[in-house]
Amino acid sequence: MKALLLVDESQDKIAIREIEKPNPASGEVLIQLKAAALNHRDQWCRIGLYPGIEYGTVLGSDGAGVVVAKGEGVDDYWLGKEVIINPNINWGDNEAAQSVEYHILGMPSNGTFAEFVSVAADRLMEKPSHLNFSEAAALPLGGLTAFRAIFTKAQIQEKQKILVTGIGGGVAQFAFQFAVAAGAEVFVTSGSDNKLQTARKHGVSGGFIYKDEFWVKTAFNETGGFDAIIDSAGGSSMNDYLKLIRPGGRLVHYGSTTGLPKSLDMFRLFWCQASIHGSTMGSDSEFVKMTEFVNQKKIKPIIDSVRSFDDIVSAFDQMHEGRQMGKLVVTF
Amino acid sequence: MKALLLVDESQDKIAIREIEKPNPASGEVLIQLKAAALNHRDQWCRIGLYPGIEYGTVLGSDGAGVVVAKGEGVDDYWLGKEVIINPNINWGDNEAAQSVEYHILGMPSNGTFAEFVSVAADRLMEKPSHLNFSEAAALPLGGLTAFRAIFTKAQIQEKQKILVTGIGGGVAQFAFQFAVAAGAEVFVTSGSDNKLQTARKHGVSGGFIYKDEFWVKTAFNETGGFDAIIDSAGGSSMNDYLKLIRPGGRLVHYGSTTGLPKSLDMFRLFWCQASIHGSTMGSDSEFVKMTEFVNQKKIKPIIDSVRSFDDIVSAFDQMHEGRQMGKLVVTF
Repeated sequence: MKALLLVDESQDKIAIREIEKPNPASGEVLIQLKAAALNHRDQWCRIGLYPGIEYGTVLGSDGAGVVVAKGEGVDDYWLGKEVIINPNINWGDNEAAQSVEYHILGMPSNGTFAEFVSVAADRLMEKPSHLNFSEAAALPLGGLTAFRAIFTKAQIQEKQKILVTGIGGGVAQFAFQFAVAAGAEVFVTSGSDNKLQTARKHGVSGGFIYKDEFWVKTAFNETGGFDAIIDSAGGSSMNDYLKLIRPGGRLVHYGSTTGLPKSLDMFRLFWCQASIHGSTMGSDSEFVKMTEFVNQKKIKPIIDSVRSFDDIVSAFDQMHEGRQMGKLVVTF
Repeated sequence: MKALLLVDESQDKIAIREIEKPNPASGEVLIQLKAAALNHRDQWCRIGLYPGIEYGTVLGSDGAGVVVAKGEGVDDYWLGKEVIINPNINWGDNEAAQSVEYHILGMPSNGTFAEFVSVAADRLMEKPSHLNFSEAAALPLGGLTAFRAIFTKAQIQEKQKILVTGIGGGVAQFAFQFAVAAGAEVFVTSGSDNKLQTARKHGVSGGFIYKDEFWVKTAFNETGGFDAIIDSAGGSSMNDYLKLIRPGGRLVHYGSTTGLPKSLDMFRLFWCQASIHGSTMGSDSEFVKMTEFVNQKKIKPIIDSVRSFDDIVSAFDQMHEGRQMGKLVVTF
């Protein structure tokens, strides 16, 4: 079968190669992938910025396809089913945090950038029927991360004011879509007017260009502050967010792409009764709830582009440049 | 009556003066104070490090006494009762945070460092019967702040491992006592071996001298990390605490006496699913729950010393120097 491997010898660090089709072991199913989607994690693996890199691994955490074979002990029910894959491996029993054995499909386990992938049958959810394979493939990792950040950590509720920053990113897009679907009044930031306009089409109430010198003041004047802020930039923006947070509000960070903050206004933090929550990925039960929520609210992931698997290297390059607005999908 | 006023003209900035005894207005009661206790807030007011300073105000947030008169609309029930005073004024309806009208008894409202104080009748709780007046006077502000930090914010539970830092402080002492009473396994830090020994007598499992270069490593090796850390130091210790926090753990800060952190390990924060909670004071319902908890567990505040009200300036000086281990109490 064809698969995208992380390779040491190529300058691109990734290459499509012919490898052996996996055999589902006991408890596993073999999925013929119809579509797969990229995450920043894939690009980080490519450039060596992810812990525990192993060359020769098939990358890819997100995928949707059809179950075509099964190992021992797997119910016949799944054969022929259209499915999406929970990318968690070994989250463990603790809802509050992943276990030390935790990892994500696609490194070091072989992932979804291949014609076939073998995963444990308990990783399957039926593909939401309102989504085609490309849309369904876009959902798992970003949807799971956003769901935990928005509901478990930020505990957003109907009519609350929410800010989602940097809505070029996949998780941020799910975050604002989920928050809108939950009935919150949602605002976003971006570096690009086009992206703000896309977000407006998806129901957000307003947006701010974070490159504007006075965006924090503008945002405060327009909104009176936010009950929760969902962010993956971190860095010096943290103190801006503390200025924008309402008393008792929650800052949720699922990344720190602009680095570490040089200071933190602790006085504002405690006087405002605010909190800062780290969040990454989500538990298996959150994956189930997220998929149910997407089904119930008929949420469709925002897709930037769909291309053939043969062109996947160009999707990595596009992600690296940050030009996309929506998920980058490949089909088989 | 005699009262300790914040005064501009004296070098001490505080002075006992003779002022008129207050008359309880409608809904208020007049309390003859039997004992009052100091908080850092009082010393901060003295040295001008508190917002909204008004000279001529009677300082003091903590007090216990007997209801000797009442204004219109107050139930006869309270007359003659031994009481403690909830120092909150205008917390408001939101459990998550105080309202913008919120302030604390003792600035700008006249406080407890006087022979009499007039407060709204809904600020009263009956003095816990296992406490004498000096012990009861030590409870309100510190107990309330610790209760919110420990239970509402850190959400500590039986058998969890908890670290309370800087146990020279009044809030920290209530925090470790409450955590011990709740069945947690409690560790503390201090700059002084004597203070660690006092904490051990009150049921803590271990202690660390934070001046030791390797205390973080020692603490980690001895405990494996903490489910929650309760701190008022802030500053550069924040990243030490992030090293000591268990996955899913909570850092609660009710102050930042060593200033602001110069950085914050966001990567550890999100990979560990950890959270940082600002906390200050507590709601009225938390004050009721705290008093009930103290009654139920028969907790006695740690008292450093009890002196006559006439010597109260020396208690301020002692607090300024940080020599105390326990509350500084004055009696009338």
